Amino acid sequence: MDALILSYSDTRRLVDMVGMDVIMRTCIDRLRNGFSEVSRERWRGCPPRNGFVHDHSVGGGVIENMPYLEVNRGMTLKTISYKPNNNAEHRLPTVVGAICRYSDSSGELLAICDATVPTAIRTGAATAVASSMLARPDSRTAAIVGAGLQAVTQIHALCVSFALERIQVYDIDRKCAESLKDRCNFTSAQFEVFDDPHGVVEGADILVTATSVRPGAGPVVRDERLSSHLHINSIGSDEPGKTELPLSVLNRAYICVDHLDQALNEGECQVLERDAINVTLPDLVGIARSTGQPLPQVHDLTVFDSTGFAFEDHVALDVFLDFAAEAGLGGKFSILDGPVGLHSPYSTSATN
Amino acid sequence: MDALILSYSDTRRLVDMVGMDVIMRTCIDRLRNGFSEVSRERWRGCPPRNGFVHDHSVGGGVIENMPYLEVNRGMTLKTISYKPNNNAEHRLPTVVGAICRYSDSSGELLAICDATVPTAIRTGAATAVASSMLARPDSRTAAIVGAGLQAVTQIHALCVSFALERIQVYDIDRKCAESLKDRCNFTSAQFEVFDDPHGVVEGADILVTATSVRPGAGPVVRDERLSSHLHINSIGSDEPGKTELPLSVLNRAYICVDHLDQALNEGECQVLERDAINVTLPDLVGIARSTGQPLPQVHDLTVFDSTGFAFEDHVALDVFLDFAAEAGLGGKFSILDGPVGLHSPYSTSATN
Repeated sequence: MDALILSYSDTRRLVDMVGMDVIMRTCIDRLRNGFSEVSRERWRGCPPRNGFVHDHSVGGGVIENMPYLEVNRGMTLKTISYKPNNNAEHRLPTVVGAICRYSDSSGELLAICDATVPTAIRTGAATAVASSMLARPDSRTAAIVGAGLQAVTQIHALCVSFALERIQVYDIDRKCAESLKDRCNFTSAQFEVFDDPHGVVEGADILVTATSVRPGAGPVVRDERLSSHLHINSIGSDEPGKTELPLSVLNRAYICVDHLDQALNEGECQVLERDAINVTLPDLVGIARSTGQPLPQVHDLTVFDSTGFAFEDHVALDVFLDFAAEAGLGGKFSILDGPVGLHSPYSTSATN
Repeated sequence: MDALILSYSDTRRLVDMVGMDVIMRTCIDRLRNGFSEVSRERWRGCPPRNGFVHDHSVGGGVIENMPYLEVNRGMTLKTISYKPNNNAEHRLPTVVGAICRYSDSSGELLAICDATVPTAIRTGAATAVASSMLARPDSRTAAIVGAGLQAVTQIHALCVSFALERIQVYDIDRKCAESLKDRCNFTSAQFEVFDDPHGVVEGADILVTATSVRPGAGPVVRDERLSSHLHINSIGSDEPGKTELPLSVLNRAYICVDHLDQALNEGECQVLERDAINVTLPDLVGIARSTGQPLPQVHDLTVFDSTGFAFEDHVALDVFLDFAAEAGLGGKFSILDGPVGLHSPYSTSATN
């Protein structure tokens, strides 16, 4: 059976063909539906990711393997590397990897998709799902700390979900902060670049932190000038020691995590006890669905601790594979090509 | 950068081109060298595999992810499925999967190799390394219980390492047992097929168990008629509940495991306490190397509990990639094809 390859260029082309809003909205809808359908049984398919933390002598970062299995729908396995030096050393994005789909029935490799674009989009989509539950529906001002690649899909996802009018930007690299407006030319919101990460939060209804801060060097914002109703999406915390928010913020916020064990292992919540976490995003979506109405906006300060987990990649890969099939996009290759020797690995054998 | 694909056919062709003995000997030598070079630091790169156990309503089996990272030499990740019904349902081998190599420096996918042939060969090679340490050097008779695909490379590896004259075979499928001789036409040893798994062990110097026995249905041999000096390679135990040997054999044997945590999780040793395990194969090889001579043959009954672990796949993939490069074999594909947008996943952005 042939396997499908969607390269990085294929995924970019697919976004152009289908439309970035359609792809993002489809991801948001499927994530939301997936979360709300979740039963305890189904979530057993999503263990915390596992991987390797690079020593800072080799530039730090992590390389992780994120498996998710859904019976009769396959195993999705994303291998994803986060290397802060990738831009400078390799002219590659900070986050690089591949998403593989295997048949859970036979073990065959069915598809490989470059992870760059789907990862950025599904991380944005998770922020949209969380923010639509936790931020004020009339949010108009977003602040973003860390203006790299992930910032683009964070803003895109928020623009799809809120009528944003103003986006306040900070990055340690001012040029990068200044270029974000051009990279987000899909929105007519006003961009303002700030010189410090503290002023940037003032007046924001929603804050996104998406930095490459080194482990131990956080937080990246202070517990100052935050709106009382602020909703924070913390995207960057994804390795031990790497946190973006002050403990005082976490201590008084209503905290929603994507994946409980991951959040405690490597998210913002690594500095908290398990019982300090209020809810998981799947549970939050499930509760809202079952009560038939959005949650009352009882919470002031809220935090979504987004570590990014394998179910999201499973959903994103489905979205890309479905649109690619419609568009006839992607290459084919054969890995388990025949005739396959069922009883010998050697072709010198008399019987196969 | 292009990635390399070695399909199943490519790996078979490579074995033909290079020669099955050369491939096997190279794997044995590199495994032995790898084991003996092992430091505690290096072995931190090899966590126990993780995966999913299939319910018996869907035919049982497992699908597992086996990562190994060696700094500056890449991360090897094998995804391997063991499905007892694969032959009948899909006309595929019982063990199916793919071995991927990623750059640990950038996260890029560098190579994909079908796992069927390398897995069978490296499992044979591990048996050869263990047996050369634990079995009598003058072993002439081997018994094999379970005559499927793995049996071929088990016998091949033993024939490369011992002057075997006689091979005694049992399989619950007598036709399969009878065909093993033809599938092993690389050896001039005499084959004898047995009607029961108890007689087959009589007179054997080395026993290999390589069955698809269902969890809970073992053991596959009795503690009867075993030579006092028997060395056993137990290959089939690789999921919880699946064991092939009687407890009484384990209780009085000298036990060597490939990977301590895996052996306790899913190998023969899952029925033992940790302190009942005498040694790991890497330590055994390391000790012999450092003392400069083979171990004295002080042990009577010995067991090698071979769960198969990721370092072995890393070594086997290196062997196949090296020979493929020499032979100019394999396809190429581009997954992270350029120009890569460092700061946006969207091509609609004004700057890349």
